Amino acid sequence: MTLDIFAARRERLRALLRTHGLDALLVSHAANRYYLSGFELHDCQCNESSGRLIITASGEDWLCTDARYLEAARRLWDENYIFIYGGDAAGQIRQLLRSRVNGVIGVEDCCVSMRFYRQLSAGLRLEAADGLVEELRVIKDAGEIAALEKSFAVNHALMEWIPSQCVPGRTEESLAWEIEKFFREHGASELSFASIVAVGRNAALPHAVPGTDTVLDGCPVLVDVGCRVDGYCSDQTRTFWVGSSPSPEFVRTLELVQRAQRAALDMMRPGVRMCDAYGAARAVFESAGVAQFFTHGLGHGVGLETHEAPSLNPRQDAPLRAGMVVTVEPGLYYPQWGGVRWEHTVLVEEDGVRVL
Amino acid sequence: MTLDIFAARRERLRALLRTHGLDALLVSHAANRYYLSGFELHDCQCNESSGRLIITASGEDWLCTDARYLEAARRLWDENYIFIYGGDAAGQIRQLLRSRVNGVIGVEDCCVSMRFYRQLSAGLRLEAADGLVEELRVIKDAGEIAALEKSFAVNHALMEWIPSQCVPGRTEESLAWEIEKFFREHGASELSFASIVAVGRNAALPHAVPGTDTVLDGCPVLVDVGCRVDGYCSDQTRTFWVGSSPSPEFVRTLELVQRAQRAALDMMRPGVRMCDAYGAARAVFESAGVAQFFTHGLGHGVGLETHEAPSLNPRQDAPLRAGMVVTVEPGLYYPQWGGVRWEHTVLVEEDGVRVL
Repeated sequence: MTLDIFAARRERLRALLRTHGLDALLVSHAANRYYLSGFELHDCQCNESSGRLIITASGEDWLCTDARYLEAARRLWDENYIFIYGGDAAGQIRQLLRSRVNGVIGVEDCCVSMRFYRQLSAGLRLEAADGLVEELRVIKDAGEIAALEKSFAVNHALMEWIPSQCVPGRTEESLAWEIEKFFREHGASELSFASIVAVGRNAALPHAVPGTDTVLDGCPVLVDVGCRVDGYCSDQTRTFWVGSSPSPEFVRTLELVQRAQRAALDMMRPGVRMCDAYGAARAVFESAGVAQFFTHGLGHGVGLETHEAPSLNPRQDAPLRAGMVVTVEPGLYYPQWGGVRWEHTVLVEEDGVRVL
Repeated sequence: MTLDIFAARRERLRALLRTHGLDALLVSHAANRYYLSGFELHDCQCNESSGRLIITASGEDWLCTDARYLEAARRLWDENYIFIYGGDAAGQIRQLLRSRVNGVIGVEDCCVSMRFYRQLSAGLRLEAADGLVEELRVIKDAGEIAALEKSFAVNHALMEWIPSQCVPGRTEESLAWEIEKFFREHGASELSFASIVAVGRNAALPHAVPGTDTVLDGCPVLVDVGCRVDGYCSDQTRTFWVGSSPSPEFVRTLELVQRAQRAALDMMRPGVRMCDAYGAARAVFESAGVAQFFTHGLGHGVGLETHEAPSLNPRQDAPLRAGMVVTVEPGLYYPQWGGVRWEHTVLVEEDGVRVL
């Protein structure tokens, strides 16, 4: 992506700031920072920021970071507006804000720690302002959709190859490593999240960690994996049966899960409430008397983050909009024998959804 | 590690709670949670917790998580004290705290977002209580040291193998991927941080991202990499010269950096102030007139996180203590041609330091 795209996004954010009566936004969330600048998609660690942006309504934008990132920042940003802090980042950013912004400063309160906020606040008019950049990010532009298509293409190729790898005797962790190598050697920069590879009863853990349990001749294998290509994440789940004759529980559960997914996909389009998409899948499980084994939401947005807005759950009554990219991933989990989840990610288009 | 180790750590924390006049601590930081329970070393994403612990002075400890993790939690924790939330995690944990804890509840304010805190606080007596678990974690026990030794052994093996891989024409990102495969195929569960592989002038970026620049015949290659073994991180940097005759700048810079590192290592022992360890390295650069090219701290703690307490920087006047594990990594950076960093990680022992 060219630097122009990031600049255009900052202009769209600037318009939003004015709508919300904010004179500036301090951008702390890593994916938001990257979306607006191209600077560092990742923080060093969850509790260690690689930098923050100050976007002002007046048009003066700052990239604040520490000296380790100065050269990287120079490649992306006007050097006159790079602010290098050392040691007390919050205090030094406070001084910069006091000298450059006269008015109300929005802070992303879902991504700023109590401590940082306390150190930042003296002498400033701060206001919680979550979700402004996310409001832009929720509708994907053409470049983002192209990146997502590339990411999902690698993910589909992987899912076609996986059954050949589900060989009895192989451990979950060995299979997870083969999956990671496949992704990396087919164009991905990294996994988009820690792979879930769960055999047998472990498939009843929706977020199982791959361990030393082995694939058996005659067991389910749940594979929930994704990769990152050109910055964008993919996320897909399939549940395979290893061996020639799937158990009756597996066959019935897989059929129900796929039917629930189809019910949701068939009714999803712009204007449909997210809770109703969830409800369409759940209704299939309810009429089969198994709804209590569907223990999570229907899906979530995917983009620069694996989990991002929106969330398809029973509490969300906002409507789907064209340009959203969301997972649709019903599942049923039985501690006695395992579970089944089946996941597609779709782009919401004018007249329905398209599977990525 | 057995579950007993986690229980013993909780008892040590309980004693600290009483010292600090706290009736409970809500543990939110992922590495702290794992240290006390063995439950989920990672959060789903930086902005998506996998769960929190409530440790009370009275001895009643809770593991709070969502339904995705119930089975994993059961394998580690008394089921009567597993609290499953859905949707509004903060509000539901607040209700649990209101019903079970009568008194002051510590909150890790470096790891809790503004939003979570606001949703948690109604009707509770909360107090910022950072660093209590970190105070325990800063001194490594025998099991932790054994895990660190395993992690660093893999890292040393990698560093011996790296020069054979620095072949002219190879890209930084291809080298980074070979490094990751080496780690994973020699016992590591993952990288402990995103590998830094920087050729030529990129070595002037202390946190360079591996890209498409290639190794040349006659250039520096800075490699700063680490892996995780048995939960524990390693972290090492070396800077190699590719080709037969290193440039005079490189030779002189490498010699200075190693001399600075040696100066720090020679004086480090229990009781020495961390700022003085930093100062010992910096003094070498000052007497050579190059201190302005040393742009970061001397080092940091390493354990369950790559970057953890303590920090060896000029503002830290706390003393080193036996059982601490810290990096010692001076560097000099020149945008014109590159840079050199050299890093050992050491265990502070009674009479000095031992390189891991």
